Amino acid sequence: MNSNRPIGVFDSGIGGLTVVHALRRLLPGESLVYLGDTARVPYGTKSHATIERYTLQAGAILQRYDPKLLVIACNTASAHGLPALQAAATCPVLGVIEPGAELAAKVQGPVGVMGTLATVQSGAYETAIRRRMPGAEIHSLACPLLVSLAEEGWLDDPITTEICQRYLKQLPDAVKTIVLGCTHYPVLRPSLDRARPGTTWIDSGDVTARAVDALLENSLGYRTESSAGPLRVLFTDAGTRLKEVGSRFLGESLEAVELVEL
Amino acid sequence: MNSNRPIGVFDSGIGGLTVVHALRRLLPGESLVYLGDTARVPYGTKSHATIERYTLQAGAILQRYDPKLLVIACNTASAHGLPALQAAATCPVLGVIEPGAELAAKVQGPVGVMGTLATVQSGAYETAIRRRMPGAEIHSLACPLLVSLAEEGWLDDPITTEICQRYLKQLPDAVKTIVLGCTHYPVLRPSLDRARPGTTWIDSGDVTARAVDALLENSLGYRTESSAGPLRVLFTDAGTRLKEVGSRFLGESLEAVELVEL
Repeated sequence: MNSNRPIGVFDSGIGGLTVVHALRRLLPGESLVYLGDTARVPYGTKSHATIERYTLQAGAILQRYDPKLLVIACNTASAHGLPALQAAATCPVLGVIEPGAELAAKVQGPVGVMGTLATVQSGAYETAIRRRMPGAEIHSLACPLLVSLAEEGWLDDPITTEICQRYLKQLPDAVKTIVLGCTHYPVLRPSLDRARPGTTWIDSGDVTARAVDALLENSLGYRTESSAGPLRVLFTDAGTRLKEVGSRFLGESLEAVELVEL
Repeated sequence: MNSNRPIGVFDSGIGGLTVVHALRRLLPGESLVYLGDTARVPYGTKSHATIERYTLQAGAILQRYDPKLLVIACNTASAHGLPALQAAATCPVLGVIEPGAELAAKVQGPVGVMGTLATVQSGAYETAIRRRMPGAEIHSLACPLLVSLAEEGWLDDPITTEICQRYLKQLPDAVKTIVLGCTHYPVLRPSLDRARPGTTWIDSGDVTARAVDALLENSLGYRTESSAGPLRVLFTDAGTRLKEVGSRFLGESLEAVELVEL
């Protein structure tokens, strides 16, 4: 098996670029192909059947690039589409929920999980955390407005802080660790910190990058070429603010973008 | 031509149910078939080419019901897909922008237009208003967060008022009339009123219902059956909050819902 093949990263839109950001920091030598389904984003308000179907279609597109590994960088797509894509794909498929749950299961005391409506309703984090820690106390919280706030760029903003407070006050005070169960949320950290000071946030992008590292080390192999790892970015639709918002999530300027047909 | 055929109403999701609400109030005898493209909603952040393609696909689905008239109840789809659907459809097609512009062109002084990013970037309201009133002073304002707030149900809410204020203060004080250029916005009226007291709001749903009435009276004919007009509601995806949020927009309980495949 050729370890120089790319890692395919799939997201419902641009939020998954926070996972690409974490991957490029930790594994700068890896070749990455990112696919964002901007023509049908967001997934967080859609049904299980539709999210699963979209995830399979995106996986099929990424398979054309002969990846050594597929990463579902979207919590909603991981919650609803991971088993189906694992069954269909010809390479290993990693979601963002298992790595986040792995870390959350080690927490002493109750854990919070923030996510989209579809992620919370799937119960995927509860299932994944309780598989590792059967008696875990988990409080899940759907936060539908946060994706729009992140895309609008109101990151360190009194209104965003107020909205985060309204959501977060539904969690018991004893919750000191909260999983950011949506790839859009890490960019809201300034407002989240102000809304609930002293919280430890589990960033699913960071832990997923570490899980990818472990997979490469243990079984799939690192890219051996010495050049910096290339990044190829594909979208199913190119809205006008794509590069502006995308660069915010990627943490670097988003230059060349390719369009793919669904 | 049989005037008992239904009126087909298309929207990107559930916002267009505010137009259905206005139609059922004004024309209770008419038969309506509504199609909401909830599998791909929202359109407001997507590109011209994608919105136009989606509008054509939705129009083709509604044509199966042999409508006497198609109404594009979504401002974004009207701004980007109306000419293409008019060229493709076998019946007349009315968008929501022309009726809103008709009323806005009669206003003395400057006019504001609130809408999605895609609607504002299309310049469709400017074009339609200036066709009727060449020297009109028009101030357009993209308000990306308002759709999410309407769907979250924070209708009469201090946070929503604050967000409306932040958007609306970008308009000159002299603007006293503002077009609600997105079908989601009318449900936010309590917060909008508090954010900018004394404003006259042009509700594109209301004016579109009156435009439909005029079309039926002048050329297409009213339904002649004496029973109350039936309403059939189709969606391309059934998310879990669909009936709850849909009922809020429809102004009556949303009962039977059918799923259609894209």
